[in-house]
Amino acid sequence: MSEPTPPGPISERSRVKRHPERAAYDEAAVHAVLDAESIGHVGLVVDGEPAVIPMLYGREGSSLYLHGSVASRLMRKLPSQPTACVSVTLVDALVLARSAFHHSMNYRSAVVFGPVRTVADDDEKCHGLRVITEHLVPGRWAEVREPSRVELRQTAVLRLDIAEGSAKARTHGVVDDEADLELGVWAGLVPVVRGFGEPVPDPRLAAGTPLAASIASALAPAG
Amino acid sequence: MSEPTPPGPISERSRVKRHPERAAYDEAAVHAVLDAESIGHVGLVVDGEPAVIPMLYGREGSSLYLHGSVASRLMRKLPSQPTACVSVTLVDALVLARSAFHHSMNYRSAVVFGPVRTVADDDEKCHGLRVITEHLVPGRWAEVREPSRVELRQTAVLRLDIAEGSAKARTHGVVDDEADLELGVWAGLVPVVRGFGEPVPDPRLAAGTPLAASIASALAPAG
Repeated sequence: MSEPTPPGPISERSRVKRHPERAAYDEAAVHAVLDAESIGHVGLVVDGEPAVIPMLYGREGSSLYLHGSVASRLMRKLPSQPTACVSVTLVDALVLARSAFHHSMNYRSAVVFGPVRTVADDDEKCHGLRVITEHLVPGRWAEVREPSRVELRQTAVLRLDIAEGSAKARTHGVVDDEADLELGVWAGLVPVVRGFGEPVPDPRLAAGTPLAASIASALAPAG
Repeated sequence: MSEPTPPGPISERSRVKRHPERAAYDEAAVHAVLDAESIGHVGLVVDGEPAVIPMLYGREGSSLYLHGSVASRLMRKLPSQPTACVSVTLVDALVLARSAFHHSMNYRSAVVFGPVRTVADDDEKCHGLRVITEHLVPGRWAEVREPSRVELRQTAVLRLDIAEGSAKARTHGVVDDEADLELGVWAGLVPVVRGFGEPVPDPRLAAGTPLAASIASALAPAG
């Protein structure tokens, strides 16, 4: 991400001011971060003050699908404002330096902005839920019962079309002052690793039901 | 978290409307979530629109310390608005049901609101940095070189005093419609586990430098 290739104009809002060398504005960099996570922190303005809510999302092209209950205030508020912001962060390592000042973290993050609209059409609602489910566990949608009309009526689906965004990452090692090298303090990176544990079957699962292929695949790369 | 014991009035902003049975408003529940993470998503309002930025934090009592460069726009903006919002989320498991509709996640989250002020005094600045460092890796502060006056001058430290907040958690198993139990689809929880990997020493570390005690302790519980 050291050589950003802006696809178009970058607004002041999306321009990364601190550590601009860590920034990227191209779609591929932003999408790579979005695809590596499934929880985003969604910002909205309520009575002039900020609120931040964690939400599951799924990406398709340059859109994010979000969902919630039709009774949710958040589901009604988000489409009523001109722009929403979604922030996604992955922590990769603690950066432990010899001085307090140079402590840091390696991370990948993306911040995207765009208008949010309520998906009204049942087919697109169902599609949005599929995108979210497949984003979380690829292949799961085909294994499970699809939403009924009644369930679709209870579910609000929103679509955020990414108008602009940026990705930022720190991926390098410890930076320390020359004078501190002699301190004899251990310094280095401590990787933060995330993966899946052993699946816990639902107690009501019929004996002998095999683990779903989607879950077996999801477990494979993470060990 | 099933029996919230509100310590005082809960404003509309903090009252959890969806799944109120998952909510808690007591300090201990909110602090427990804040202490289990070290990255929060900070919401602010810029020109009337929402922005969400990931930041490291450290908690002391009912305050959160944040830090950044004195040159950072964010560090100047946050204290200029009446209230900031910090949202912290931990994902504990994927909840994989037999129907798409009942898919969910087990998680713990906290959303806190409060005014932010710039810490001006050098001693409190240093203290705030210690709180952040110790929140991340307990015991690390005593091992490393403390910030110099020049470094303190380059660092902005903010303090958010939590005025209100809420915690929310989903911790139960799969919920499925009776009729779906016969589908023969695998259903259950897939735990999401996070921990530290093998430390990677800085290439400039003198041979034989032992791993710091703070890091050894941090590695121990996570395996």
